[in-house]
Amino acid sequence: MRRHTTSAPTVRRRTNGIPVVLGVDIGGTKTAAALIPASATGGETEIHLPARVPTPAGGGAAAVLAAALELAEDRLTQARAAGMDVIACGVGSAGTIDDNGVVTHATDALPGWRGTDLATAFTQRLGLPVTVLNDVHAWALGEARYGAARGSRLALVLTIGTGVGGALVRDGELLRGRNGMAGSLGHTPAVLPPDADADRPCPCGATGHLEAYASGPAILSAYHARGGTAPDLKSLPLARHNTRSPALRHPAETTDPRNPLGIGQQAGSETVDDLAREVIREAAVILGRSIASAATLLDPDVIVLGGGVTGLGELLTVPLIETIRRYTPRGLDSVPVRFSTLGAHGAVLGAASAAMP
Amino acid sequence: MRRHTTSAPTVRRRTNGIPVVLGVDIGGTKTAAALIPASATGGETEIHLPARVPTPAGGGAAAVLAAALELAEDRLTQARAAGMDVIACGVGSAGTIDDNGVVTHATDALPGWRGTDLATAFTQRLGLPVTVLNDVHAWALGEARYGAARGSRLALVLTIGTGVGGALVRDGELLRGRNGMAGSLGHTPAVLPPDADADRPCPCGATGHLEAYASGPAILSAYHARGGTAPDLKSLPLARHNTRSPALRHPAETTDPRNPLGIGQQAGSETVDDLAREVIREAAVILGRSIASAATLLDPDVIVLGGGVTGLGELLTVPLIETIRRYTPRGLDSVPVRFSTLGAHGAVLGAASAAMP
Repeated sequence: MRRHTTSAPTVRRRTNGIPVVLGVDIGGTKTAAALIPASATGGETEIHLPARVPTPAGGGAAAVLAAALELAEDRLTQARAAGMDVIACGVGSAGTIDDNGVVTHATDALPGWRGTDLATAFTQRLGLPVTVLNDVHAWALGEARYGAARGSRLALVLTIGTGVGGALVRDGELLRGRNGMAGSLGHTPAVLPPDADADRPCPCGATGHLEAYASGPAILSAYHARGGTAPDLKSLPLARHNTRSPALRHPAETTDPRNPLGIGQQAGSETVDDLAREVIREAAVILGRSIASAATLLDPDVIVLGGGVTGLGELLTVPLIETIRRYTPRGLDSVPVRFSTLGAHGAVLGAASAAMP
Repeated sequence: MRRHTTSAPTVRRRTNGIPVVLGVDIGGTKTAAALIPASATGGETEIHLPARVPTPAGGGAAAVLAAALELAEDRLTQARAAGMDVIACGVGSAGTIDDNGVVTHATDALPGWRGTDLATAFTQRLGLPVTVLNDVHAWALGEARYGAARGSRLALVLTIGTGVGGALVRDGELLRGRNGMAGSLGHTPAVLPPDADADRPCPCGATGHLEAYASGPAILSAYHARGGTAPDLKSLPLARHNTRSPALRHPAETTDPRNPLGIGQQAGSETVDDLAREVIREAAVILGRSIASAATLLDPDVIVLGGGVTGLGELLTVPLIETIRRYTPRGLDSVPVRFSTLGAHGAVLGAASAAMP
């Protein structure tokens, strides 16, 4: 996360505005950018000129990079036209990012992304000092400085969505790790209940990783494998159950002990509802046990959860938090579990924040 | 790990010596103390007037505290007699220590130790500013400042002995955690191979924790359960195998695939040798898989291992390191694994170091 600069001196335009930093977030489906005041030190902060475009992942790395550079340059132009003094740019990107701002590893979400030199490309195009970091790291930094992890000494920040990503933040600074991969709870062995299939394939090629049980695609796959017919997580027939009912506060009591996995149930409308509820609960338990293990190792001040899967609501979050409490050793079980407060802007905010002088 | 002082002003004696700090290490079997220069900043450091006494654990908390205070006061007197300027005292103690220097949790190794106010006791007895921390944390801090983890940004430091303890050190500073328990890998669920018994009891009362498989007592218990007769780990018939033989560099090839656990083998002299080798290898594999999981979450710069079990030699360390490499995801597998270089003095050094102004 070194700061990168052009060799030629940057021409600073004279403005009357306050200094701002440009944040860019390059994800598998969308690329976003906005400007935030360079003096933002926490709490509510202004977000100027936010914009987003689809990430042209199908077009390969060159197309993805071109779209991101165009969006960034456009924001820079707009900001200057509005009298802002843009002093730096922070880029959060999917993939593992090394100290030189180069993508060293990427998943199939961005084909060919590995090897992309983001630091050089953005520095040359924008003529600004540029800082590059992983998008989950950027989001976590945003949560630590402006969101749900604000003020914490050590935060474990996890996103559960298409994948299971995470980050560790200490006193508002990222613990990036030797390879820029700290926080990769999704690729640790899932802590499974005794009757679970231990060999589910993970997108990374290994088996049994947490991501293979708790990501959105993993939950949907388990649902389809048992006869569920909804095409995606957003279509799951959950609404009737997804309220604060007493039963949901004690989900263990709602499970049929003779058939805890619900295998063999028919896929009628009533049963599908139960099936969706059951696969979500199973994912929540595995996620909760794995988070409890990480919390035992780290003894963090706060655990922050975000990502699309947390949008499943209390069917997920109630058994999840209950499981974290149940499997965390005595003395550790009071760790607060919070949910993301920054939402879609988190990674842009965090990326900009990482670039502040 | 706050610094504690008496309310009355400390009388500083005039000396001609360099400033030194008193370090005290209160463990389950011995209590040690020594003085180190307050200017020690890393690498080789002088250790003055080291001494140790047995910990009278059977006498209860009062006896343990009295013995530690007496040893500390004696070292202080000796140091002053030698012209040293003792400016502070650091105490490392078994158990969980809160920010007030009070023991909030302790195992059966020190009965009644919970609730002991070490900060007040040492401050009043010695008339020095006192810093108190967990003994494993103290040792890890010593390794990070003077030993095997020196110069690392993020170190995972583990001791495998009577228990499995650990600590996280960032840039030479402990990450203590919300409850002072960061680094407790021993009480996370062991990452087990498919055929292992998942329910081994842990001394903490839970089942399946890493400590239940990898501690010295756990290894000895597994050995005895299969007919081994040696009374302790030091007596295991290992010497003939414990050299750098090609077979030991590839321990997977030395296991009988039809009977990987060696169950049912006779306890003759040749077989006991194989049995000891096998239980050690099994513990090494479980330990290695669990460390690989922790290394994936943390992406540390270095992993440092110490404790009596590492003294079992290559029968343990070769399969251990091989397993760490095998189960760490691509991109992370180059993390250096080192062994403690401070040995018995580590906790005293680290405790003193924690108290430096």
